[in-house]
Amino acid sequence: MAHYLIGLDFGSESARGVLIDVGTGQQVAERICAYKHGIITQSLPDGTSLPPAFFLQDPHDYLQAARDILTTLGEGRIVDGIGIGFTASSPLPARSDGEPLSQFYPSEPHAYVKLWKHNAQIYADRINAQPSPYFQNFGGRVSGEWLLAKAAQIADEAPSVWAETERFIEAGDWLVWQLTGQEARGLGFAAYKAQFSSETGYPEDVVPGLVPRLSRPLAVGSRAGSLTQYWRGMTGIEGDASVAVAVIDSHVMLAAVGAVSQGCFVGALGTSAAYLYLSDAYKPLPPGIEGFAFNGSMRNIWCYEAGQPSFGDTLAWFVRTFPRGADMASSFKRYNEDAASLGPAAGRMVALDWLGGNRVPFADGNLSGLLAGLSRQTTAAEIYQALMESLCFGARMVFDLFPQGGLQPERVLMASGLVRTNPLLIQIMTDVFDRPIEVPEIANITAVGAAIHGAVASGVVVDYVEGAARFGARNLMRFEPRRTSSDIYQSVYAVYRDLAGQQDIHSVMHSLKDLPAV
Amino acid sequence: MAHYLIGLDFGSESARGVLIDVGTGQQVAERICAYKHGIITQSLPDGTSLPPAFFLQDPHDYLQAARDILTTLGEGRIVDGIGIGFTASSPLPARSDGEPLSQFYPSEPHAYVKLWKHNAQIYADRINAQPSPYFQNFGGRVSGEWLLAKAAQIADEAPSVWAETERFIEAGDWLVWQLTGQEARGLGFAAYKAQFSSETGYPEDVVPGLVPRLSRPLAVGSRAGSLTQYWRGMTGIEGDASVAVAVIDSHVMLAAVGAVSQGCFVGALGTSAAYLYLSDAYKPLPPGIEGFAFNGSMRNIWCYEAGQPSFGDTLAWFVRTFPRGADMASSFKRYNEDAASLGPAAGRMVALDWLGGNRVPFADGNLSGLLAGLSRQTTAAEIYQALMESLCFGARMVFDLFPQGGLQPERVLMASGLVRTNPLLIQIMTDVFDRPIEVPEIANITAVGAAIHGAVASGVVVDYVEGAARFGARNLMRFEPRRTSSDIYQSVYAVYRDLAGQQDIHSVMHSLKDLPAV
Repeated sequence: MAHYLIGLDFGSESARGVLIDVGTGQQVAERICAYKHGIITQSLPDGTSLPPAFFLQDPHDYLQAARDILTTLGEGRIVDGIGIGFTASSPLPARSDGEPLSQFYPSEPHAYVKLWKHNAQIYADRINAQPSPYFQNFGGRVSGEWLLAKAAQIADEAPSVWAETERFIEAGDWLVWQLTGQEARGLGFAAYKAQFSSETGYPEDVVPGLVPRLSRPLAVGSRAGSLTQYWRGMTGIEGDASVAVAVIDSHVMLAAVGAVSQGCFVGALGTSAAYLYLSDAYKPLPPGIEGFAFNGSMRNIWCYEAGQPSFGDTLAWFVRTFPRGADMASSFKRYNEDAASLGPAAGRMVALDWLGGNRVPFADGNLSGLLAGLSRQTTAAEIYQALMESLCFGARMVFDLFPQGGLQPERVLMASGLVRTNPLLIQIMTDVFDRPIEVPEIANITAVGAAIHGAVASGVVVDYVEGAARFGARNLMRFEPRRTSSDIYQSVYAVYRDLAGQQDIHSVMHSLKDLPAV
Repeated sequence: MAHYLIGLDFGSESARGVLIDVGTGQQVAERICAYKHGIITQSLPDGTSLPPAFFLQDPHDYLQAARDILTTLGEGRIVDGIGIGFTASSPLPARSDGEPLSQFYPSEPHAYVKLWKHNAQIYADRINAQPSPYFQNFGGRVSGEWLLAKAAQIADEAPSVWAETERFIEAGDWLVWQLTGQEARGLGFAAYKAQFSSETGYPEDVVPGLVPRLSRPLAVGSRAGSLTQYWRGMTGIEGDASVAVAVIDSHVMLAAVGAVSQGCFVGALGTSAAYLYLSDAYKPLPPGIEGFAFNGSMRNIWCYEAGQPSFGDTLAWFVRTFPRGADMASSFKRYNEDAASLGPAAGRMVALDWLGGNRVPFADGNLSGLLAGLSRQTTAAEIYQALMESLCFGARMVFDLFPQGGLQPERVLMASGLVRTNPLLIQIMTDVFDRPIEVPEIANITAVGAAIHGAVASGVVVDYVEGAARFGARNLMRFEPRRTSSDIYQSVYAVYRDLAGQQDIHSVMHSLKDLPAV
């Protein structure tokens, strides 16, 4: 009888699963399940209104989605391993038996999952005001999106919730706990989102009472446990069903794209963009890069992380704000067609891609988007093109930090669903990078990556190299720089770098954020 | 029998005339006539293709329009005076008998009228490379839109045309010549557009052979002559029909808005914006202001000139590029309604209004528009609002130069057709200026101003004060600053000034203009 792996990809709006035949390595089924309550921004499931800038989720939605997907894919099948990629940092407060506090306090916002995009910036600012050696792998600072800031927010704004919080746990780790009955946290979440290191543990004294509410994580690829009888009964899954510790969704795909060795620079281009660089050896964090950890993305390798907070989101914003068709898809199609007919920087504009602030290299959420070079001849398609170019310049600026820090990228891979709908974007990025870019041709890449973690955890494969070979992408599209275009883009990129580095422009953006409310 | 004045307003696309009853001071008829060939940018009337960046007109179109309007308004009527406002600098080469060279060389681009928006910047740059005392009233430099640069272009690019050019003359002066049989140039064109001064004449040695092709101008309000028998026969006009020397269209409206005395700051807000300041006494040109002259706009007064190259054009560009209705009018209406519901700087953005470059204070046509503060929450209406605000900030920056230069504005008047369709724009400007703004309520303001010049030239009135009282606007709308809004706009204006003054941003814009062609 055939054996299978299941990979689960818990995103912001929905979860996705794939079923992989261990023997053939092929995906044989997939399933998507939207979260019942989606991203909760206006009111809690019981109707309680939320303050502004809250981005919550209901942890029961994850269980519903997991049940739906595991049953659909796994019922009556022998499943060797299950892996999970999950958004992060998306922590929730729970009791020591794993029950989420939202179950007991349905009207309390702070009892729910704080989704990654929930930003507790002022708490991060307070934490960052006290330099801590714990943060050295993260450029000396923490983000308002990360676990420490979110813990500080609950402790400050909802002390009674904090008092009842026995475990403060990433939703991915919490789901593993539910599926296996074991609290087994992933080292990736702990390191990148809670500044854990194997040598020094979690940061002490940053948020009072936090460390006892955490637990020591396991290297990714570790087996958390086997699917519980309860879940087996509910889903009909048979076999060993080893569940791997959960992994940050933007990291979990590495093996699926075949990026398993030193020198790979991998982009995951979605609504935001994440960039990962792999190194066999420890090298200090290049200035401007967000952080790095060992054993947090794959085993026995250092993974450096950087990103752009708004990537596909920026283009979606433009197309939604200035539609040119009956729906988003037709508007996108029209803009992409028009942009494809333009020469590089056709409108003689340059944009700064900071519509969601800048993470790398400035780590400044109060920066904002900018468009320079407007004239009365400027067309909508030229602005769209300038935004696409700015995303690629922003990516190039991230990329350049690695060689500047002594880390030589050897291959550049971009994993993106965007390549199917918007290959022009990848071509522009290739021209801007002025080096070949490989794009793995594989569906459900995050879920497949998760399945490979399940394969490692369950012993189906000995390591990620074997996992990538058996279950990862088999074909790569290769984009080559177009000479003329690339030459021009080097000139425009010089303008972008010049503009991006102007502190006076940063000051203007800060002044805009600080304008008095009306 | 009733006596009349006729005012003619020759714009870029069409001419407009008004008939005013001398006894009642009322407008009794109006007439618009579009130019047959409009603005010629693609090909000459005979089909000859044009190089890029040519903006020409056919002088015969002016004669057709004049005939149509004068006949419609004047046939069988006693017309005491005729005045003309005309775009400038819009010069043409002619023979000494007044025949335009385009009549003999219909396939030669340089034989046609070079419309004001035709920019011979590289010739201006060459001229400006040699400092000249003739330019001191104009900040030491000439514009590529002005007569000297256009003459230099013909001399350089079409020497055979230049050799046959016996008169190089503003189209407004040329039309007066046609109507009266007298070459009688207006001092306004000569001073503001050809750097003539009564003391030193035209600039010598700047463009070889130019000065003999010009002729000494007359103060505005001078009588050029009476309508010729030929034109009387063609139009049926009776009476003295004195024709005043022609006046720059953006200056001719002064008396019509009641701005006839020291301390008036008058804006003419159209596709571009012109700002005029009146002073009884000579004061040196405030740095950044474009130029000034005596007797060039009205009699016995100094008039300082400044402007924004793209004003209404900027909003029209946005609405055309991102339409939200079936036509421009409905799109404008919707944007204006949406913007009216927003608080000041609702999108926390600031724009630079340089979509047509900047004239004041930077005199730099290679600057371009900029938008800072974009986020994924930014709406189209917020961008539209930011553009409106930037136009008002740009106007405020012009305004501020006068008191800085020791010239105190006492009244601020804005003449604009925009006030009817877009009163919000005037209200924002009032808030940004933080002082009351008066808006004359009068139709056909430029043509009425021209008619007052006709009244002065023909002796119907003794001066412009009387002309303004009898034929100018009788009602003024008064806009008052809204306290809260004005307070916020002072903060945003500070950001605008900061941004506008950043030389590094200017450099970025220059780099964009200098990008290699594809």
